[in-house]
Amino acid sequence: MKAAYFENGKVHIGEQPDPVPGKGQALVRTHSCGLCASDVHFLHAGQNIIDLSRRLGGPYAALDFGRPFVPGHEFVGEVIDYGPGSRRAVAPGRKVTSVPIMRQDGAHAVIGYSHDCPGGFGELMLLDEEIMIEVPGDLDDDHAAMVEPLAVGLEHARRGRPTKDDAALVLGCGAIGLGVIAGLKLMGIAPIIAADFHAGRRELAIKAGAHIAVDPREISPHAPLPDFGNRVPNLIYECVGQKGMLQRIIEAAPFDGRIVMGGYCMDEEALFVFAAQNKRLNVQFAGGEEPQDMATALRAIADGSIDVTPWLGARVGLSGVEKTLAEMSGPLAPVRTVVDPRVL
Amino acid sequence: MKAAYFENGKVHIGEQPDPVPGKGQALVRTHSCGLCASDVHFLHAGQNIIDLSRRLGGPYAALDFGRPFVPGHEFVGEVIDYGPGSRRAVAPGRKVTSVPIMRQDGAHAVIGYSHDCPGGFGELMLLDEEIMIEVPGDLDDDHAAMVEPLAVGLEHARRGRPTKDDAALVLGCGAIGLGVIAGLKLMGIAPIIAADFHAGRRELAIKAGAHIAVDPREISPHAPLPDFGNRVPNLIYECVGQKGMLQRIIEAAPFDGRIVMGGYCMDEEALFVFAAQNKRLNVQFAGGEEPQDMATALRAIADGSIDVTPWLGARVGLSGVEKTLAEMSGPLAPVRTVVDPRVL
Repeated sequence: MKAAYFENGKVHIGEQPDPVPGKGQALVRTHSCGLCASDVHFLHAGQNIIDLSRRLGGPYAALDFGRPFVPGHEFVGEVIDYGPGSRRAVAPGRKVTSVPIMRQDGAHAVIGYSHDCPGGFGELMLLDEEIMIEVPGDLDDDHAAMVEPLAVGLEHARRGRPTKDDAALVLGCGAIGLGVIAGLKLMGIAPIIAADFHAGRRELAIKAGAHIAVDPREISPHAPLPDFGNRVPNLIYECVGQKGMLQRIIEAAPFDGRIVMGGYCMDEEALFVFAAQNKRLNVQFAGGEEPQDMATALRAIADGSIDVTPWLGARVGLSGVEKTLAEMSGPLAPVRTVVDPRVL
Repeated sequence: MKAAYFENGKVHIGEQPDPVPGKGQALVRTHSCGLCASDVHFLHAGQNIIDLSRRLGGPYAALDFGRPFVPGHEFVGEVIDYGPGSRRAVAPGRKVTSVPIMRQDGAHAVIGYSHDCPGGFGELMLLDEEIMIEVPGDLDDDHAAMVEPLAVGLEHARRGRPTKDDAALVLGCGAIGLGVIAGLKLMGIAPIIAADFHAGRRELAIKAGAHIAVDPREISPHAPLPDFGNRVPNLIYECVGQKGMLQRIIEAAPFDGRIVMGGYCMDEEALFVFAAQNKRLNVQFAGGEEPQDMATALRAIADGSIDVTPWLGARVGLSGVEKTLAEMSGPLAPVRTVVDPRVL
């Protein structure tokens, strides 16, 4: 099959082996796949991520950075076939997406970060038939590809255990932060404050459901909120993923505050335990979507209660992957560019 | 009054000004006061603790390390008088203890770490009459002095939100860890695993209610528990307070594990966010007792449901404070030595 693959920290376009479905595996033809900041991260720092996974326990331990693998974990595709002995619950021709996880002998492979389970930057994928979910046939492919990144935000939102008494603050309005905002709105949480350096992202945050969006260089996002009875944000979602954020939030959070660490930061983070103890803070580490979040995200996108249209930028073929990855980290890039691997 | 006081990191015995009660303040004659590891900590590293409090927000910002102050925050004493205009709810002659907090113009002073509010290493103290609680007259003074350190452990235990489904692990069996164990037992949590390097402390842990006490150099305290259906400790209390504990626990904890950070560590702590995210861990920072914990601790000590007798070592006069502080950090020292400041 044709694919955009990573090898030794470089993007290549070319032939990769067609995956062969085993029992319980669907063979899927990819229609659309989002390009995610973690793909960029992995392209540059993949060896470090693999080493840390081996040392500390993580899902990338089995990956060999020097061997080709096909990334792409925000995908939608069409079922072509199944491995022998499969349940075949979704008929060939129907569309599916999935948590990018494949069960393997009691362990899990991450689809897109595995030599056995190519991701959505290739023409063909294998999905676990017990994990994948069917996508309505009339849902646009690119919208369907946003189910996974939205589900990550919904998981983070949910892990904060938000209640009607919380004033939520979302730091960073990339796909994850926007998904958190949309999730909080869906749960009826108010107020929701968003913070991002860039005006375009703040506009998207308001569209996603934030009541206020601030530039943290101009207004402290931790300040009391005059329009909301001078409440102070007490439930703080970290969706930036840069070193130093945790201690900065600890210093800014109010007594009894709760922090959800959503941003994926591979650097060692430093904090002062006693500063967090003085305020009795709680830190919930959020990791990524579970099947229930995929189901919620799919339903919300399909019924229009969450609109991901503003996330979507250009659509590229395989030959556009390298350039898009090089340019997408900037805040002026669209939230998501998608690749259609059927197109070169 | 006579007192053992700290000045510039040294212990002195001598005269200190008699405190004068204002409105809402009781003047109290100290009967007994526990010597705590934080006193030792403050004696050696007080300037650093004050600096960090000023930089990061903490209760010691107003203290001048170069000026005398009288420590001692685990006290019981007898009410002598009140400031003018006080409510005087507890009659003179009755015994009281208190969260070591004094309200001051909308802020709080920590009794024992304040130039205005001397602690229990002196003959006289001021207590906030709205915060102090009466101690039954027939309760032994030294047992009553243990209400505060026990209440710290009860607060930590409670902040972990333990349920019947949790298998609890308490790392470190000093006064705080023992208080956590006693609190968990009071709440009916099982199993409770205790870990400490020292046999004497492990014995105390079993007396306090732990089902198993292990030497972590011999048996991993995070291992499955054959006597409890191979459950793995999922609610982990850090009561050691040494640098590096948080990341070590993150690496050892199971998926969905909860960590309560009770140990008071002033060093910068490092952690890998992604390692905690992979397991969706939750970290609750615990800070110290609230009035409800003091009430619970007093009731439990008074009715015998928690027995602090094994905690108590020698009783010293003021002249014994310096030597006791020098020797108490070792695990072979009793959990608590108390000072009676009426005795030289």
